[in-house]
Amino acid sequence: MLNEVQELESQKSVPHRDFYNVRKVDTHVHIACGMSQKHLLRFIKRKLKTEKDVQVYYDKAKKKALTLSEVFESLNLTPYDLNVDTLDVHADSKTFHRFDQFNIKFNPVGESKLREIFIKTNNFIEGRYFAEIIKEVASDLEESKYQNAEYRISIYGRRRDEWDRLAKWGLRNKVYSDNVRWLVQVPRIYQLHHANKFISNFGEMLENLFLPLFEVTMDPKSHPELHQFLKYVSGFDSVDDESKPEGQAFTKNTPEPTEWTGSENPPYSYYLFYMYANIVILNNLRRKRGMHTFLFRPHSGEAGAVHHLVTAFLLAENISHGILTEEAQIGIAISPLANNCLFLSYPRNPFPDFFARGLQLSLSTDGPLQFHFTKEPLMEEYSIAAQVWKLTRCDMCELARNSVIMSGYEEEVKEHWLGLNWRKDGPAGNDILRTNVPDIRMAFRYETLCQELQIITNATKISDALKT
Amino acid sequence: MLNEVQELESQKSVPHRDFYNVRKVDTHVHIACGMSQKHLLRFIKRKLKTEKDVQVYYDKAKKKALTLSEVFESLNLTPYDLNVDTLDVHADSKTFHRFDQFNIKFNPVGESKLREIFIKTNNFIEGRYFAEIIKEVASDLEESKYQNAEYRISIYGRRRDEWDRLAKWGLRNKVYSDNVRWLVQVPRIYQLHHANKFISNFGEMLENLFLPLFEVTMDPKSHPELHQFLKYVSGFDSVDDESKPEGQAFTKNTPEPTEWTGSENPPYSYYLFYMYANIVILNNLRRKRGMHTFLFRPHSGEAGAVHHLVTAFLLAENISHGILTEEAQIGIAISPLANNCLFLSYPRNPFPDFFARGLQLSLSTDGPLQFHFTKEPLMEEYSIAAQVWKLTRCDMCELARNSVIMSGYEEEVKEHWLGLNWRKDGPAGNDILRTNVPDIRMAFRYETLCQELQIITNATKISDALKT
Repeated sequence: MLNEVQELESQKSVPHRDFYNVRKVDTHVHIACGMSQKHLLRFIKRKLKTEKDVQVYYDKAKKKALTLSEVFESLNLTPYDLNVDTLDVHADSKTFHRFDQFNIKFNPVGESKLREIFIKTNNFIEGRYFAEIIKEVASDLEESKYQNAEYRISIYGRRRDEWDRLAKWGLRNKVYSDNVRWLVQVPRIYQLHHANKFISNFGEMLENLFLPLFEVTMDPKSHPELHQFLKYVSGFDSVDDESKPEGQAFTKNTPEPTEWTGSENPPYSYYLFYMYANIVILNNLRRKRGMHTFLFRPHSGEAGAVHHLVTAFLLAENISHGILTEEAQIGIAISPLANNCLFLSYPRNPFPDFFARGLQLSLSTDGPLQFHFTKEPLMEEYSIAAQVWKLTRCDMCELARNSVIMSGYEEEVKEHWLGLNWRKDGPAGNDILRTNVPDIRMAFRYETLCQELQIITNATKISDALKT
Repeated sequence: MLNEVQELESQKSVPHRDFYNVRKVDTHVHIACGMSQKHLLRFIKRKLKTEKDVQVYYDKAKKKALTLSEVFESLNLTPYDLNVDTLDVHADSKTFHRFDQFNIKFNPVGESKLREIFIKTNNFIEGRYFAEIIKEVASDLEESKYQNAEYRISIYGRRRDEWDRLAKWGLRNKVYSDNVRWLVQVPRIYQLHHANKFISNFGEMLENLFLPLFEVTMDPKSHPELHQFLKYVSGFDSVDDESKPEGQAFTKNTPEPTEWTGSENPPYSYYLFYMYANIVILNNLRRKRGMHTFLFRPHSGEAGAVHHLVTAFLLAENISHGILTEEAQIGIAISPLANNCLFLSYPRNPFPDFFARGLQLSLSTDGPLQFHFTKEPLMEEYSIAAQVWKLTRCDMCELARNSVIMSGYEEEVKEHWLGLNWRKDGPAGNDILRTNVPDIRMAFRYETLCQELQIITNATKISDALKT
């Protein structure tokens, strides 16, 4: 409010640049719901027209492969019947505070068969359909030029060959775009792997997750496709319903991973600590060998206990959701529309308070398949936030700049998008010609932060003085 | 809430149809801001590239015609400089409760020159650029297939030849689309015409507005182009800042139009009454001659005195804005995003209350140039309403159905879009195969309305009984 007029004036004076052509990254979006519901519907209908006799699914009960039209017959559906309502993937009033109901929505028509065929990398058609639709989504981003996305793709830690299979899928289908980077998400579902006898202790899950990465770092030829694929992986995410009750706390008496042999799922902090520990060691190794390193950017503070945020604050580069956060400069990717459908209604979202307070925020979609209506989900997310919270053009450009900083894009890409000095504090780190963020905003943020740190330092001194 | 599950189930069971492919009409949008800010910017840049040496503007001071590049030189702007911030047409915090500031935003770069060149039908290039950009907007609607718009285009009543000029512009430039209908808006600015000596009394303004229409109705050959153009005009709107204070009230002592000779502007109700009176007589004449008739759908109740709503309620088919309304079944086109920028913040909009109460609502954009961010402004408007107010798919389809009913589309088009019986009350008037609105919703609305009318009737009876 202090500088609004000057801010808008300096934005006007920047040639060419405006909110539409500053780079923005959707820092938190899951690949399995990266397309809109309308896009998925059209894709399925198109395939039913052009590939109805292609075998796409192995029916274990019938012991035979089914063609696409046989699958739809078994579901009692014709292509004409299909609409967005039958697809039924959008979040609705039944999903609020019900993560379990929300998860069911990942299955088009409530049918895990369709999810298996269309949005899995590892299936009877080796993920070909999924690759095709992802490439269409990526080409929409390329067309927009300034919109980018970091898609979450799953590694489960159930089997040792998951990484190689994923890499093969990516390379064989040429799923690559300059506008896309991968974040590998690990669902916290040890208890399922254990119950299904894939693994006998938590240490094995960690080995499945990290051993292939150590091997390929030591010797790229050991997994040549994975070596290629990793170039576009910028980090790790940890995902699951945070509101689920957790059994035991993580203390010094908690068993080591190889001794965690029971059927119970470890707590959030246990998962995060052991992922963090592996990533740190892996990164050191990779740095020595001149390879890029991985960021750790878990989901945290969407719901659940405070220790989730404490853990992530200590271990993570930045976090997704974080609507229960209160302070500090850790990057937070907030998805108000997703929150609105799951845990926190839009008007009650802390976003405007956090932003006014100077926290490092970005706006992200989480999942256009479930939450959005237009063909430009990231713009839709910005639009709604701008409208409801009356953001200025300066606010929107600052959020876009934050999203690039928080992203896992390579150093040289960030320099190109934000300016050579982007790592510097305050206005020195800003290039308005690229970011459209006025220096006066950067100065305000920096001065406020310095003053707040000063207050804390002074308080500590007084407290020390009183003690002596 | 009562029937939500059944409603969703019956929507799923309708083959093919969903919210995306039910017809929806943007029932309230001004043509001068029908394009997005990004679209306008791109259009201007393109023209600067391809037609920089075309003469586009007559400079009265220099007494010569300027080329497009000379105009930009005079503004000290290069094509590269131009961005959405310099264009500065989006509503912002300074426009809230300041209709005057908002009106300035109609001028790109704050320059009436650019508005004159790019978004006027009547200028040095005879509105060619404006026609071209409108045709681009219309072709976006055609591509979407199910989205339609009723654009407000101005007739001022300043001169007698305005209708012929407008018709010539439309026909010469072939500004026609199946997805577009025109509503003629009349700004309530008698006092300006009077001060500029175009007219000497209000009666002349009415003559300029209506005489050409009576002439062309009596004898189509008298204005052949206007006769063609009128086929796509569905009605009249009355527009201006409703929050401006009004001098005198409209009573039986108020002078007749030809005696309204002073410099003061007549009140809202005076404008509406005389427009209404002319439209009724014109419609009777047209009906007798087998021509289509015009709807009267004024802006009303965006702000200002209660008598605005009373007047419109008595005289109008349906109204735009109406956020100060309370009751009854008159159609109301609400534009929550526009309200949010001008008179009423989003969370305080009465839309959800009105909708729950069963009022006849539709959602409209008012002006994508000023309020929206994506390439699909009407979908953006629905999306935001759905997210903030947690509308179900059934709610959204009901709103789309309302928008078609309120629109001025021809009877046969409405029958095609809504079903043959759409004029009937309750479920009998619904065709879920076309509207995707479940019969159970229609029954609920109809039963509720009947019960409420019953209560009023009973109350009247009791009151009568008490009197005797």
